[in-house]
Amino acid sequence: MLTANYLGPRQIGIRETEPRPPEPGQVQIQVAYTGICGTDLHIFHGHMDGRVSPPAIVGHEMSGVVVAFGDGVADDWQVGDHVTVMPLDWDGTCPACVAGNEHICQNLDFIGIDSPGALQRFWNVGADTLVRLPKDLRLDHAALVEPIAVAVHDVRRSELAAGDRAVVIGGGPIGVLIAAVAGHAGADVVLAEVDPQRRQAAADMGFTVLDPTATDQAEWVREWTGGAGADVVFEVSGAAAAVLAATDLVKVRGTLVVVAIHPQPRPVDLHRVFWRELRILGARVYRREDFERAVELLEQGAVPAGHLISHIEPITAVAEAFAALESGQAMKVLIDLAAEAPEEATA
Amino acid sequence: MLTANYLGPRQIGIRETEPRPPEPGQVQIQVAYTGICGTDLHIFHGHMDGRVSPPAIVGHEMSGVVVAFGDGVADDWQVGDHVTVMPLDWDGTCPACVAGNEHICQNLDFIGIDSPGALQRFWNVGADTLVRLPKDLRLDHAALVEPIAVAVHDVRRSELAAGDRAVVIGGGPIGVLIAAVAGHAGADVVLAEVDPQRRQAAADMGFTVLDPTATDQAEWVREWTGGAGADVVFEVSGAAAAVLAATDLVKVRGTLVVVAIHPQPRPVDLHRVFWRELRILGARVYRREDFERAVELLEQGAVPAGHLISHIEPITAVAEAFAALESGQAMKVLIDLAAEAPEEATA
Repeated sequence: MLTANYLGPRQIGIRETEPRPPEPGQVQIQVAYTGICGTDLHIFHGHMDGRVSPPAIVGHEMSGVVVAFGDGVADDWQVGDHVTVMPLDWDGTCPACVAGNEHICQNLDFIGIDSPGALQRFWNVGADTLVRLPKDLRLDHAALVEPIAVAVHDVRRSELAAGDRAVVIGGGPIGVLIAAVAGHAGADVVLAEVDPQRRQAAADMGFTVLDPTATDQAEWVREWTGGAGADVVFEVSGAAAAVLAATDLVKVRGTLVVVAIHPQPRPVDLHRVFWRELRILGARVYRREDFERAVELLEQGAVPAGHLISHIEPITAVAEAFAALESGQAMKVLIDLAAEAPEEATA
Repeated sequence: MLTANYLGPRQIGIRETEPRPPEPGQVQIQVAYTGICGTDLHIFHGHMDGRVSPPAIVGHEMSGVVVAFGDGVADDWQVGDHVTVMPLDWDGTCPACVAGNEHICQNLDFIGIDSPGALQRFWNVGADTLVRLPKDLRLDHAALVEPIAVAVHDVRRSELAAGDRAVVIGGGPIGVLIAAVAGHAGADVVLAEVDPQRRQAAADMGFTVLDPTATDQAEWVREWTGGAGADVVFEVSGAAAAVLAATDLVKVRGTLVVVAIHPQPRPVDLHRVFWRELRILGARVYRREDFERAVELLEQGAVPAGHLISHIEPITAVAEAFAALESGQAMKVLIDLAAEAPEEATA
């Protein structure tokens, strides 16, 4: 089978690899679609070489069908089940796990980063990572369950309530999904995005959008909220300027959720944090309930999955797929693992 | 009577002023002691000229005795009652007040900053700002109720629980009081302070202290907490370096409370905030329950009030008192309002 491998900074290569049978406790999935995300781009840029040893099969947003079992897998699962994977493997013994925060285990193995990922046709994973998909859910859309679970987790962590006013800073796939999840939860949402194309894409999906380079955001939010400020602001852009501006948008005792990865320390207006008794919350990955909720939201049509998928490519075009994502021209790029494996697709 | 007035940057002057009778709804207090704090020093340095118009009587940490009433004051109060003042006057109509956060009203009048303060022998304040003091509580110690209420508020906001491990960064009066309040609530506390004199003073009061310039704090805290990190970190130093280091001390899903005033935006390790799903909380001033709790703690001897009071000066030495505070040689400086007003002290 063909596998997509990180080979070193800016090098993604296709390798022919023999599928291995699933080990005890594992399930073999015939992968249908694997999405490429911002984290994969960080790997591609060599920023995560401390965790990713080439050649490494990457990818962790996926959908597929169960095809085989190792020993000792509970009979909850059958060949033909549609599944996605929650790609987290915690140790269960570190202080974070003991305190019930397994999803951010201090020694977390993130499958697809720290261990082999889903850019391969036959992927073996621990049975306890599986999340069931309804059979009538399109498998291309279902490859978005993982990023939707991120958005569900971020919104849940914010404690956003129906009727709240929320600002999402950053209109990439995660920003759009947070806006969709928050809106579905009954919040009024505005999405701030500097890039005109992304802003237009979000507007086309029905979101209220704001151009922070043309509008005085703080003034706009003040007016929008009757002088109070937003209940919740999600920082999804990763930009230093956005962080500095974000605290001005939040109401007294409101919440700023840090979703984006900020590789460097960022100046934060701590006087404003103090003055308004703001709350800043980090939010990372997800828990099983977030995955299950993500599947429900996708089933209900509450997230614009079809709009977000801008490219579907065969694995042989994976380098081009990374380039499209890097250029900022793509929203969500999926690799169709069946496209170059016709003999297996009908198996 | 003599009053201490901010006259412009670095100028504190004594003026002879005629006491005024209390207006309707007001109570006249014969002030016993008024503390000088970091905020008064900010005023002295001219940093708060947007709020303080010279000549302005400053001071907001005080104790005293009720001596007269304006019309319409409920008969809860009698001449001779010992009192302190919660120096907050909110508008009751802004979005923060409507949401129940009157203490950080968007149009808050902070008495002693935005309106005349307690560095005068006879001070008229709204009756609803009064907080009762037990008569057996020393009035010099009782001048610390306001900063103790700050500490009570900070600890309450942190949701610290008995058995938690807490780090207090900054060993000035507020840092020491937070350490005392957190310790009394059942936490294990360590106090980090760079200044050797302040560190020694805190050690002499019985606190566990740490020198961040000589010890690898993050490593120390990791060992202390079995690899987890602290449940709560209080940033009370106002130093940029402390903020950058603070996030490394906090456990997964732990809390960093921003107590200090940071006039400039500070670099914050948002990657750590994201990675460990940290919570950063601003905490400012207090609510009535914090004042009442502060009085209780002082009565119980749970805070080292006597140790903290390093200087008691007459109002004629107020300029020297500000200089002592500025030099870092003083912990808590009180002005004894009776000392230069003997004829009134016996009234």
